[in-house]
Amino acid sequence: MMADITPVLERADANLPNSLDRLFDLVRIKSISTDPAFKAECRKAAEWLVTELNALGFTASVRETPGHPMVVAHHVGATANAPHVLFYGHYDVQPVDPLNLWDAPPFEPAIKEIEPGRKVISGRGTSDDKGQLMTFLEAVRAYKEIHDALPCRITILFEGEEESGSPSLKPFLQANAAELKADYALVCDTSMWDSETPAISAGLRGLVGEEIVITAADRDLHSGYFGGAAANPIHILTDILAGLHDDTGRVTLENFYDGVEETPAQIKAAWDTLGQTAEKFLGQIGLSIPSGEKGRSVLELTWARPTAEVNGITGGYTGEGFKTVIAAQASAKVSFRLVGHQDPAKIREAFRAYARSKVPADCSVEFHPHGGSPAIHLPYDSPLLNTAKMALSDEWPKPAVVIGMGGSIPIVGDFQRMLGIESLLVGFGLSDDRIHSPNEKYELMSFHKGIRSWIRILDALAA
Amino acid sequence: MMADITPVLERADANLPNSLDRLFDLVRIKSISTDPAFKAECRKAAEWLVTELNALGFTASVRETPGHPMVVAHHVGATANAPHVLFYGHYDVQPVDPLNLWDAPPFEPAIKEIEPGRKVISGRGTSDDKGQLMTFLEAVRAYKEIHDALPCRITILFEGEEESGSPSLKPFLQANAAELKADYALVCDTSMWDSETPAISAGLRGLVGEEIVITAADRDLHSGYFGGAAANPIHILTDILAGLHDDTGRVTLENFYDGVEETPAQIKAAWDTLGQTAEKFLGQIGLSIPSGEKGRSVLELTWARPTAEVNGITGGYTGEGFKTVIAAQASAKVSFRLVGHQDPAKIREAFRAYARSKVPADCSVEFHPHGGSPAIHLPYDSPLLNTAKMALSDEWPKPAVVIGMGGSIPIVGDFQRMLGIESLLVGFGLSDDRIHSPNEKYELMSFHKGIRSWIRILDALAA
Repeated sequence: MMADITPVLERADANLPNSLDRLFDLVRIKSISTDPAFKAECRKAAEWLVTELNALGFTASVRETPGHPMVVAHHVGATANAPHVLFYGHYDVQPVDPLNLWDAPPFEPAIKEIEPGRKVISGRGTSDDKGQLMTFLEAVRAYKEIHDALPCRITILFEGEEESGSPSLKPFLQANAAELKADYALVCDTSMWDSETPAISAGLRGLVGEEIVITAADRDLHSGYFGGAAANPIHILTDILAGLHDDTGRVTLENFYDGVEETPAQIKAAWDTLGQTAEKFLGQIGLSIPSGEKGRSVLELTWARPTAEVNGITGGYTGEGFKTVIAAQASAKVSFRLVGHQDPAKIREAFRAYARSKVPADCSVEFHPHGGSPAIHLPYDSPLLNTAKMALSDEWPKPAVVIGMGGSIPIVGDFQRMLGIESLLVGFGLSDDRIHSPNEKYELMSFHKGIRSWIRILDALAA
Repeated sequence: MMADITPVLERADANLPNSLDRLFDLVRIKSISTDPAFKAECRKAAEWLVTELNALGFTASVRETPGHPMVVAHHVGATANAPHVLFYGHYDVQPVDPLNLWDAPPFEPAIKEIEPGRKVISGRGTSDDKGQLMTFLEAVRAYKEIHDALPCRITILFEGEEESGSPSLKPFLQANAAELKADYALVCDTSMWDSETPAISAGLRGLVGEEIVITAADRDLHSGYFGGAAANPIHILTDILAGLHDDTGRVTLENFYDGVEETPAQIKAAWDTLGQTAEKFLGQIGLSIPSGEKGRSVLELTWARPTAEVNGITGGYTGEGFKTVIAAQASAKVSFRLVGHQDPAKIREAFRAYARSKVPADCSVEFHPHGGSPAIHLPYDSPLLNTAKMALSDEWPKPAVVIGMGGSIPIVGDFQRMLGIESLLVGFGLSDDRIHSPNEKYELMSFHKGIRSWIRILDALAA
């Protein structure tokens, strides 16, 4: 631990107007990674970050990839044995269509008071992820201005392709593993539990994606002529898909639950204090009754339980009106969310074996894999997690909670597999930030207390 | 019965070259009803037929509809108490795309010898339905030329919208029911069993079409965030559809089989003599194992048993690649082929009640009806059917067979409901005529013996 952090926190407070100016500068750069028209803007954002980082005393550079460039920066710690953290964020943003739904131009950031005492920063990327990554840079700035040193050795990695599937990330990690290797990674691309409760995401479900295509006859058939005698691939497919769950909502694949552990009682108890209910969680999307495994809370279902989900299905005539056709083919996209130590390869094989067993001998089935990654889990009792939890709890009105995440953040798995390091997922977004949608915003409170949170976390990690 | 028909048959034989010329004239008219560019050609075909019919002594006229015109013609019978038949055919044809797959221009008919002794008439509409309707006109011509009279009183109805769903037919029948009413209808738009065996289609399955739309959440969801807790409408839909059949292939809807009678043993025995097998029937489409109800022949399954068939299904992401979405909606088009006295309204209601019982309380289901018509059946022991059967058996190498038809021919139901008359379905097409496809043809034998067949049938009906 360095000296008292109070002056650092005060400096962050005093810096806030200038911190916002810098964030606004970054937001004004139209770094939409999916649209080739904005290629130069993506590079401009990377260069802007390099300039900022170099000014902060980092050794920073733009690093080429086949796509948009990476930014890599290094800074020593205050002591030789200070912990080494790798901070990750992304400077690219989502497209802005439909433009007519924005209340103000997406790349002209502004502060708005949306209700008495509640101010937000509006603009594309303010929450995802420019505002978030800038909380870390401004925390670093306050440290440097007060102590001319940093409590941890810091490596920074910013990518510019997160919104387009990160095609260059794995090769880049592989090629630069030695340079990027740290004690652990800090990933700032997630949300708080609510506006008063910070959150650390400790579990990320894995994912197996699989496309299944059933072929019956060698052409589309007239259902009058052949109906009743010819196999209908939609029937075969719906039979397979309907059989994936039993009456209690459990997935029926053989050995599917191998490696799935029950959530510890104290974690479940902590989740219960969050006040989440099926009515609240599902009410926001017009539903009320939990689907899936019976007798489990919605938090457990989405954070700690595996699923089998049909994400798309098509077959036969789907246009206006009606055609009495028996299709030659029908297909579906199926995904499995994984938890614990479920093995993606075994789950995929179990699905294929099950599906094959349901296909008549004169029909055929094809499978197309669409990605597979195991669940990732920071142990609930990890020191890293507990340290961050206490630091966050000091900053915010309510104690930090350790939550699960139903989705997958591939970078976390990549860091684990390719650099051999665990990630701490801390972010200050709120669920209503409208990331990926018109009128994206970031709470001014998120930005301000986010900066202060990183000051506390860096301090605690150095202890 | 009029005098001996031998001279009439001989006259038909002698007329054949001129009969073909007349058919060629009609085929050259590009009466594609679905394409507005061919509107004038459709009228030209109607006018051509009126001219021919008037020349044959009919009182014929073009009759306007909101779409393409009808042709109606009347001719008295040889005696006052001669039976009155209504002959139906259609002068419109299918589009010709893809044109590059035709061996010759589709509207330039020609005679080709495709194997030694086997000649065909090539061109769009030669089989469907210009060649077929001309068999009847040429039969009439031979009678007129020999006897200057017809054995039956004949009303003719040709429509020009059969290939585009016959939108004007019902209103026309309704408005002209008194004029079109006859003792029975002769419909010439079907096929033979094989090139040696004429067929009378005695049973037509009915049809209930139904679209089902399941709605769960009020928007598409991310399967990471909500998966495991939020209802997935594709799961609900596949569960409903998979439950439509039991393990024996029977449809599970309540009271579904009410009104379904077992096919009489002697009819089944007659079908058995046709030599149809699952391997042959399904082999033509790359399949081999009968689907549907276990323990029944493919002829029984397609001619005499009801079905539930999913004709189309869609939901979620169906494009390239993968999206981990939980859809807000999923929908399917479902049809039921009906036999015997199954009631379309009751079947529809049974499906809806069953589906509703499977939809969770916080999700919703909508239904959109797409037509419903009961099965139609000429009693296997009807005198009309037996008369025609004997007349056909006299003409062809093998005795005529009474077959079922898996599909629906709406006109037959319309005649029954709106004119109160039964239809006799006799046609001389073959299953390889490629109707609706490039290189449509009609066997020269079908045309020639088709003319002779109608001479015999008219004679037998008059007896």
